[in-house]
Amino acid sequence: MRSAVLLLAITGLLPATIYAAPKNIIYMIGDGMGPSYVSAYRYYQHDPASVTVTTTLYDDLLTGMAGTYPDDDTVVTDSAASATALATGIKSFNGAISVDRQHIPIGTMMQLAKRLGKANGIVASSQVNHATPAAFLAHSSSRRNMNDIADMYLDYRIDGKPVADLIMGGGTQYFVREDRNLITGFTELGYQYVDDYNQLDNLTRLPAMALLTESALPAVLNSDYDSMLGPLTAKALQLLSTADKGFVLMVEGSQIDWCGHDNDIACAMAEMHDFAQAIKVAKAYVDANPDTLLIITADHETGGLSLGSAGVYEWRTDVIKKVKATGREIARQLQQLENQQDIHKRFTELTGISLDKAQLNLLFTALQDEDEKIGRNQILQFINEKSYTGWTTGGHTAADVPVMAYGMQAEQFRGFMDNTAIAKKLIQFIQQTK
Amino acid sequence: MRSAVLLLAITGLLPATIYAAPKNIIYMIGDGMGPSYVSAYRYYQHDPASVTVTTTLYDDLLTGMAGTYPDDDTVVTDSAASATALATGIKSFNGAISVDRQHIPIGTMMQLAKRLGKANGIVASSQVNHATPAAFLAHSSSRRNMNDIADMYLDYRIDGKPVADLIMGGGTQYFVREDRNLITGFTELGYQYVDDYNQLDNLTRLPAMALLTESALPAVLNSDYDSMLGPLTAKALQLLSTADKGFVLMVEGSQIDWCGHDNDIACAMAEMHDFAQAIKVAKAYVDANPDTLLIITADHETGGLSLGSAGVYEWRTDVIKKVKATGREIARQLQQLENQQDIHKRFTELTGISLDKAQLNLLFTALQDEDEKIGRNQILQFINEKSYTGWTTGGHTAADVPVMAYGMQAEQFRGFMDNTAIAKKLIQFIQQTK
Repeated sequence: MRSAVLLLAITGLLPATIYAAPKNIIYMIGDGMGPSYVSAYRYYQHDPASVTVTTTLYDDLLTGMAGTYPDDDTVVTDSAASATALATGIKSFNGAISVDRQHIPIGTMMQLAKRLGKANGIVASSQVNHATPAAFLAHSSSRRNMNDIADMYLDYRIDGKPVADLIMGGGTQYFVREDRNLITGFTELGYQYVDDYNQLDNLTRLPAMALLTESALPAVLNSDYDSMLGPLTAKALQLLSTADKGFVLMVEGSQIDWCGHDNDIACAMAEMHDFAQAIKVAKAYVDANPDTLLIITADHETGGLSLGSAGVYEWRTDVIKKVKATGREIARQLQQLENQQDIHKRFTELTGISLDKAQLNLLFTALQDEDEKIGRNQILQFINEKSYTGWTTGGHTAADVPVMAYGMQAEQFRGFMDNTAIAKKLIQFIQQTK
Repeated sequence: MRSAVLLLAITGLLPATIYAAPKNIIYMIGDGMGPSYVSAYRYYQHDPASVTVTTTLYDDLLTGMAGTYPDDDTVVTDSAASATALATGIKSFNGAISVDRQHIPIGTMMQLAKRLGKANGIVASSQVNHATPAAFLAHSSSRRNMNDIADMYLDYRIDGKPVADLIMGGGTQYFVREDRNLITGFTELGYQYVDDYNQLDNLTRLPAMALLTESALPAVLNSDYDSMLGPLTAKALQLLSTADKGFVLMVEGSQIDWCGHDNDIACAMAEMHDFAQAIKVAKAYVDANPDTLLIITADHETGGLSLGSAGVYEWRTDVIKKVKATGREIARQLQQLENQQDIHKRFTELTGISLDKAQLNLLFTALQDEDEKIGRNQILQFINEKSYTGWTTGGHTAADVPVMAYGMQAEQFRGFMDNTAIAKKLIQFIQQTK
């Protein structure tokens, strides 16, 4: 017994940096997924027939919270600066794609993984060269240089090869351009390629690429799918799991943020559900492969979402569950109708909300505005008011974001941490690859 | 070595419910302290001359998050229902003071502590019979029955004695009434009593009571004190620490919530600072007394606070730091002035904000309104707009709240939990008292 106590005492003295590194890392980023989104999704998926609210996967895996401020003259980050922090462990300015304040490139964990012989991949529900995935694979002074970033996916080489072994998401418009066809370049280097979600099975080995849409993937709420990220993540893990030295996979739930920018709660809940299905797939992989670390976080909060608004102590998920499309899609459909009765009928079909005369007039007027945002915002305002969903901004906020971890070394991500600390630990794990 | 590994393996198999219970529990509740308040306070206390944002005590002690929904027809709790959950481990309806949906009393952890011979006390910056402390000591169908609750502090007996050994905060109006003088009752039972913050030293042993104001303690921002809760907590710990069987102390940062209801960010930051000073005292106590558990949480979020608003990617702490009084106090002072120039001058002195002509007219008109809220809200709107502080409600939201733990058995409070789980664990610890 004494020797056991002694060993425990000695173990307690070991520096925290000495540990067995996980062979595989699955890094999932819910863009815009502030803490209120996690609370919201729990209540959204709750069955009102049950007395107790069941926890979600987000809850079950929660280990801490992360601060997100950029290296800029503000505490509110954009997705590029935060993706840089999450991909490199170094903070930078808003707009930066893995370059520092002097616009000098900062090495990313995917580049390191490639250099050390690990397989790596990115999956996103946005364009694959959007800010978050871009910061893992490329360098640019501005996230707006989207063609340059796409070029760099092919042209930036580690040991003669592109950084990513696997790229899945949307964005053919940036890869098949008049001035250049990057897909030809990738296939010449041996990449398998599909551009159809129903042909994912044709991807049988690395390197591989799937660009499934011209721009982003469709919003889940408008699609026929319960989840698109779930099956994409499953395919990615199937391909990456054959790598001898393990892999690093980044999966982004890209559009949670976009729903937040629109202040569109039904859209946000559908994207949270999509992302949860991808997490489910990743967790099952960890259960079957205990040498894997699953880490989940967000880059920032979007919208200043609150559950409850305007002094009312309610948040009505029953209202939100009835909404069948995003505000953008509802506006698009209504703007194609001429007759006011048809508009009201279709509005009610898509939202479950009946409007009184004054509200209908507001809707008609808004839909006639040349700025399509006006109609959309009016539609979303009805949904937000009826569900008591609060928003403070169409942009981001400086809220801390949740951190979830599961599997090998998950206990390293407990408590409060800076977002750079997450990347620093993951980079340390990758460096320990043998 | 083999026996050591075996012991570790066996230890891993022990059920989580078998542990050594802490002798003392310090339970601190930041009323309304949602996660954004914790982020906000970190940036608020940040020295802009430093590149790195320093963590606060809140960050350093963070272990998890808690859900707060009540047993009611809504997911948004009030302070009474959540205090009931936090004091008893059982959810109830909004307004309930430790009674269930059938209005039947639910035993509280303070009553249990008293029964088992532990000392106990409550400290609050509100009236001591306000919802949160009330749910630890009394039972009522409504938080509004404030005289009844005060009566119960004296009349409800455990083994012939009142539940609390120590009561500190505000609220003489409920304890010295025309129909009844409860203080006489307490002193007859041997309670030491002071009603002056400068006479705290006169309290030398338990049982003891300090009611320092007629109603709540002054808002810290309007007071001459950097912190009032810090010294009160120090005095409470000094008195309780002599108890043979240990103690349970509940300290409430009551007015964080009130600032939130007013959407008053400078007020909220001052109250967060006050509460942080009390936490500092409590943490130092744990460092000196390792058989103590410190647990900190909130009952709910208030106001739908966000750092950043209206599409702007900034949160201006420099603006907030210049504000010298609460919105209520600024309005009170301005409403006593006749001359518009004097009003503008005093407004600028108290807020650091200069107004243009149109804004001044808005202020003058608002101050003239019979409803004093109108003037206050206009003042706070200027501060919120200039600092890009967002709010969605004058009420509560269903956001999850942070959980911090330190000291003995702190690791029991990791990850996501329901608010009732916190109380259940504490009650289990109290039950293990020998």
